[in-house]
Order: sequence, then C-alpha cells, then structure tokens
Amino acid sequence: MSRSIVVIGSGAAGMTAASTARKTDPDASIVLVTEDEHIAYSPCVIPWTLEGKTTWDDIVMHDPDYYRRERGIDVRILTKVTSVDIDKGLMTAGEEEISFDSLVLATGGNVFIPPIPGKDLEGVHVVRTINDGKAIEKALKNVQEVAVIGAGVIGLEMALSLIELGKAVTVVEMMDQVVPRILDSDLAANVRQYLEDKGVRFLMGSPIQSVDGDGLVESVTVNGQTIPCGMVIFSTGVRANLELPNQMGLDIGALGGVRVSPSMQPYRRGRLIGNVFVCGDVVQCESAIVAGPTMSQLGSSAVRQGRVAGINAAGGKTMHEGVASPWVSVIGDLQVAGTGISSGLASWYGIEVVVGIGRGFSRARYYPGGTPMTVKVIAEKSTGRLIGAQIISGEDATGRINWLSAAIIERVSAGDFISRYENAYCPPTSMVRDVAFAAMEDLVSKF
Amino acid sequence: MSRSIVVIGSGAAGMTAASTARKTDPDASIVLVTEDEHIAYSPCVIPWTLEGKTTWDDIVMHDPDYYRRERGIDVRILTKVTSVDIDKGLMTAGEEEISFDSLVLATGGNVFIPPIPGKDLEGVHVVRTINDGKAIEKALKNVQEVAVIGAGVIGLEMALSLIELGKAVTVVEMMDQVVPRILDSDLAANVRQYLEDKGVRFLMGSPIQSVDGDGLVESVTVNGQTIPCGMVIFSTGVRANLELPNQMGLDIGALGGVRVSPSMQPYRRGRLIGNVFVCGDVVQCESAIVAGPTMSQLGSSAVRQGRVAGINAAGGKTMHEGVASPWVSVIGDLQVAGTGISSGLASWYGIEVVVGIGRGFSRARYYPGGTPMTVKVIAEKSTGRLIGAQIISGEDATGRINWLSAAIIERVSAGDFISRYENAYCPPTSMVRDVAFAAMEDLVSKF
Repeated sequence: MSRSIVVIGSGAAGMTAASTARKTDPDASIVLVTEDEHIAYSPCVIPWTLEGKTTWDDIVMHDPDYYRRERGIDVRILTKVTSVDIDKGLMTAGEEEISFDSLVLATGGNVFIPPIPGKDLEGVHVVRTINDGKAIEKALKNVQEVAVIGAGVIGLEMALSLIELGKAVTVVEMMDQVVPRILDSDLAANVRQYLEDKGVRFLMGSPIQSVDGDGLVESVTVNGQTIPCGMVIFSTGVRANLELPNQMGLDIGALGGVRVSPSMQPYRRGRLIGNVFVCGDVVQCESAIVAGPTMSQLGSSAVRQGRVAGINAAGGKTMHEGVASPWVSVIGDLQVAGTGISSGLASWYGIEVVVGIGRGFSRARYYPGGTPMTVKVIAEKSTGRLIGAQIISGEDATGRINWLSAAIIERVSAGDFISRYENAYCPPTSMVRDVAFAAMEDLVSKF
Repeated sequence: MSRSIVVIGSGAAGMTAASTARKTDPDASIVLVTEDEHIAYSPCVIPWTLEGKTTWDDIVMHDPDYYRRERGIDVRILTKVTSVDIDKGLMTAGEEEISFDSLVLATGGNVFIPPIPGKDLEGVHVVRTINDGKAIEKALKNVQEVAVIGAGVIGLEMALSLIELGKAVTVVEMMDQVVPRILDSDLAANVRQYLEDKGVRFLMGSPIQSVDGDGLVESVTVNGQTIPCGMVIFSTGVRANLELPNQMGLDIGALGGVRVSPSMQPYRRGRLIGNVFVCGDVVQCESAIVAGPTMSQLGSSAVRQGRVAGINAAGGKTMHEGVASPWVSVIGDLQVAGTGISSGLASWYGIEVVVGIGRGFSRARYYPGGTPMTVKVIAEKSTGRLIGAQIISGEDATGRINWLSAAIIERVSAGDFISRYENAYCPPTSMVRDVAFAAMEDLVSKF
C-alpha cells in the first residue's frame, strides 16, 4: 500500500514539502491541509502589490486544482486541523478524520501584536496573507495617515509603499535603530535617513502604548504622545504558531520554535518522533555561525527546510544543515542585504568582533546608472572567521550577499577571502575589484 | 636606504602592483614606466565609450600627477623599456638607466592578429587601449560596414556597440560557436541568436583568409567569400607580450605566458629569480580547477595578481592562489557570465562531466522588470565536484557568478551546494529559490 503523507500548512515550507515529497515518492498519497484561502504565493510581495507593481491574482502561482492535476497533491483550503494524534497517525481536519504515515507540520507563524489597549480596533492590520493585503488595500481608500509599528524590513517596505500611495506614514520602533538585530546600526542609520528623505516619520526607542479610538482607529499613543492615524499596521515580528505543536506535546526550544533534529523531526519529552517532520517559521533550526539554534523565518529558509522535510517524510534521507540566513530587502531605490549575524547580535552572544567597511560602486565608477555600494563585514576577533556581512546598494545586492554568505558558511577569514575568492568584472556590472574586497582589506587592516 | 621598486606596465596589474607596494612600504621609491599615454583606465569599457555611454576623459581614473602627488609613485608615460639586467638590477627606459631592488613586470599582452595578407592595411583595428578606441571612433565616421574578427566577449560587445551606432556588422569566427572555450555551446547559441536578432551577421567555423584593399580596407575574404567592409576589428585573443621576458631570459610556460611561482616570481632556466615579480596578462598562473597552469587574462585577475606582486616586491609575503577566473560580459540586454571551465574545455582536458541546467527568472516570476535566467553547472563525473558554472540573465549575473565561483573554489558538489548554500530572497531581486538551485537539482538528478 502506498505511503500516506499529510502536510499541514500552505506557506513556502508546506508547499515545498508537498512537492518534494511527490518527487521523492511518485506513488505516495499526499494531502495538504491549510486554513488559508490562497496557496502558493509569496507574502513578501504584499507591499509591492499594494503599490500596484503587480496584482493579487498574478502573485498566486498555482491554485489547488493545479496541484491536484499536475502533482497529485490533494490540497484542502480553508480547513483547520484541530488535533493530531501522532501515535495513531490520525488528525481531525475540519469535519474529517485523516490518517497519515508521515506528517509534515508547517503551520508557520503569526505576527506578534503586543497586548496593549485598542489592539483589536477596526483599522488594525498585519501583513501576512493575501487577505491581509486586500484588507489593507480596501481600508486605505479612506485613510490618509498610517502608523506602522515595527521598523523591521516588512515595516520599512510597507512604509515606503504607503508613501508611494500618497499616505502620511509614521514608523514606531521600540529599539533605537531600524532593522534591529539583523542590521548594524551604522548601516541602519543610512536606511532610516533614506526613508526620512522620502517623507517617512520615525519615532524610535518608543514602544507603542495603546491604539486609540471608538470602534475605529483614530490614533496611537507613543511616549505619551498622540499620533493621529486611520490605520495601524503591526509588523512587530513573527512568532511560531504553536497551537498544534503544543496540542501534540512537541518540545519547544529556547527561541520559541519547535525543536527539530537535522532531519527536521521534532521531539516529545526529549525523544525523537519518527513520523513527523516540521519546517518553516514554526521551527528553530541550527545556526551555521554559532553553535546552537536560530529562528530563520525567511521564505528562502522555508523552502530549504520544506525540501528536507518533504524528502524525509517520503522515505528519503537528507539532512538540514546550519544556516547563515542571507536576506535582502528592497526599500525604494535601496537594496539592503545581510547574512550571518550582526555586530549587535554578536555582542548579545558575547562574541567580540572586528568589522571592515568598503565603500564603492555597483558598476565601474564612471559607468552611468551605477549606485554607491557599501559592504560591511564582521569577523570573530579571536579566530578571524567571518560571521556576518551586510550590503547597501542600489542594485545587485542579492548575488553578492549569497557570495558573502558562502564565504561565511565555508568559515573563511577576510584574509582567506582576499587570497582565494574572485570577482567577475564588466564595467556595467561591477568595479574591477568588487567592493566586497575593500571591506575585507579594511577588516584585515584592523587585526 | 629606502627600497627602490620599478613597475613596468600601467594596466590593471601594474597600477595595482605599484599602489599595493606603496601601502606595503611607505618609504620605498616607486617608479612606474609605461609605453602607454594613458594610465589607470579599464580597456574593457571601450565598446560602451564608443557607444557614447561614457567618455574617453571619464574612463581615466587618475593621471600621472595624481599618482606622484597622492601615492608617491613616479609614473613615466610613453617610455619604452628596452632592456633589463636582472642581476645588476638595472634597466634602460627610454634614454635613461634606472636601477631597482625589486622589479614588477606587468607588460600585458597584445591582440594576436593572424599572419594573413592585408593585416596591416589602413582600417584594421584592435581594441586594447584608449588610443585604439579613439582611432576606431574617428575612422567610423566614414565607415558603414564593419567586420569583427573573433566572436569572443570583446568581439561581441564591440559588434553590438557598432549595431547601436547604426553600422552593418559581420562577425567572423573560426570556431563553430560564439565565446568559444569559456562558454558551453548551448548557451553560446542563445547569445548568438540574440545578436542575430539585433542584426549582427555571423560567419562561423570560418577563419579569415585575407584583408583586401588598396591601402585602405575594402573587404575581407572568408571561405572564399568577399565581405565588403570599411573597417576590420581584430578581437582574436590576447597573447602575452614576451618581448622583455624573452630579453630577460625568463622561462615561458606551455600556455605561452611567463611561468611564475605562487609568489609571482619568474624562473630563469628553472631557477626562481629573487628580485622580479610578474603579473597580469603576461603570466600563466595556477588553475583552481585542474592541477596546472591557466591564462587568466581578465582585469579582475590582473588586480588580484598585481596585489600579490606589489606586496612581495615591497618586502611583504603573500601567495597567489589558484583561480577559477569568473567573468561577465554585457551584450546589450544580456549578461553572460562564467567561471571555472566549460564543458568544451573539460573535454579537451579529458575530464568527463555531468551538467545541470536551471531555467527561471531574475526576480519573482510575476515581478515586473525581471528577465529569464539560465544557470548551467558542470561537475566532474568521477567525484561530483563542481568545476564550472555559466549564467545568462538580463540582470544580476555578476554577484551570482561570484557565488558559484566560491562554491567551485571550495570544491563542493551540487549536492553540497543544495544542502549547505543559501540564497537571499526578495521578489524584486530573486526567486524564492534561486535559479542556481534548479541547476544543481538537475545536475544531481543525473548522477
């Protein structure tokens, strides 16, 4: 009898797990259950869809029929799994009982909204699903002033999209820099300046105290100050959705995600569970930088984890390796990217770092259309090993951060990088010596 | 007494060597001697300068005065070194005798023009120096039809610039594909098709027989066929300029470049020479892909070698590591990039390969402005180690080829790449899983 695989969740992790399981076992019965209405889209694109760069229809790659027809995956939308019995291999999904040989849990995360007064008023939004995006689009018609709570990359991308739509935008951030934790403060200052020049107002170091209004949002209170606004968007970080994991009795790690083995299998009271695989925003995985866990809540990480979970759920054997978690964000004309850990996070870990900065251009200096490019690299002082890198540029940051991420994964030093790594050169696409090398030289000069 | 360093040559290798020597030894006396009139510019930009995207003045970064004033480097232009006595540490440069403690030889290469009738007619050009570019610009005013001999990247970049300038262009190539040796034939076919669509005419598998005309170029003869043209541009590859190396008695390697040690020191009758360092287009260096030498005649390689030569000439100690030689070429709307060795070159070496192809987009599929992206990866069959990669895309090929080059340098397999490497994702700059991974998956599926 063919293997029966059930995937819970239709984000990047779940969809990838289902498709990879299908490739691994062409004969398996595969069911994917999701509470969402839409599947196979990238929530990361919501800010640009609001701006009109693309449409809600276009960003959905495939519908459930496609998966049924082309991949033999039975996708059930708008269906909530209320309980899972691991030992019996049985779950309750909507009205139905579904049995499974292997279960992939990819229940994702939810935007964390601080427990403040007024958080449930009409006009309070998050940016997580297409329906969230559509709700914002609809409500925006009657709104001129928006408060964005949280200056992470989603908050900043949203802030700029709202500016493009002609709204007045205030970003409220409890930390004293934008893109906290993952971007160094000096680069963060450049990003904030760019957004201020575009008209975004910032209230930094200021936790939100309340959302105010009578039924409908009228303002937010920050530092005792009243900020009038008709809409509040919380982009205050994502927390693992632990409803099912808790119901299943899975062990939760120190960072608040489901603990998993390198095969993406969870534990229950310290014991590995044989027939369950967990992936995506709900798990904590191993860091490639520091011994121990990290939350790598990125779309690309979800795909990577979903692949491992899908192969293993279908009887294959593969391992999830530690992550440096490269990321990139496009904020207007800026591309901001990072990988590994920031100086701030290193300091939190108690790691002493040496940093190098390179400044140059994305093309040959004289070539039209090029933009300034800053590359920052971070090394662990006692060994010289690179542990982080960040880029601000007008173009082509993505390939370059992948490149620097490879160096970090390979545990090289800045000196190694200079000796062994190379860059391609053509005047319209790079300097003859890429800016990354200037950053590495600066770092080496400080040892 | 301070160390006296002389650098011969003002290309990327020579200029980098001089500047790096200055950083390494602030007290050294540094003289740079060059036959050229202009220094500190990138010959790679000539096609775009002809097209008017930049100017001859703008592409020169610095003049000799700048080097004298800011870096204490005594640059002597339009000066030919006619002889060097290594043992005495003495050379004849123009009318002058100059002594040296350390010599950096960066005499570059010359365009190889086959010894055919008519090769010295007026109207025959090469693309090597600013003055070559200016000569082409001037002559083009009276020319409507141009024959470009050689379909390497410079030939193709020139061909498209000439099309943009409204000229009729025929490219003549003796091999049966464009960008021979470094690009695989399938990707080369796409590049050729793109250029044909732009109006470039190709004569493939056809060595040029003669340049014809009475004083002035009137046509070229290829396969017995007469191609009328008022200008012929030879982009038939660069050969090491061995005039001085031969006069100095340096050992020349099997590939036609000066043999050097990892410290970039040459040999004479098998013995390392203590006070000479050679870099740039004139040397052959070690390959990171196959044990043995390679000619890495790229601007970025010249900088890398010049740095090592400059440090060592100034009393420092550093080593030149093997190269994968990543390159990128911008041909109209196409970016074509490669690293490591092509399938064709592998076959020449007797290496059996397995290849993988990934096809996708430079941005999320639905994101406006994205372009198709093809990534090809090449692995050595017996070990699975990646030995080459190539990209055709409309954007952002440079960072990605650097990334793939890092994987090759680190000797990973496609399976390793999938397990350990990561990509950053944002809809305007990449797919959630970069096309590189699709290529790796395809490769793995063939083992």
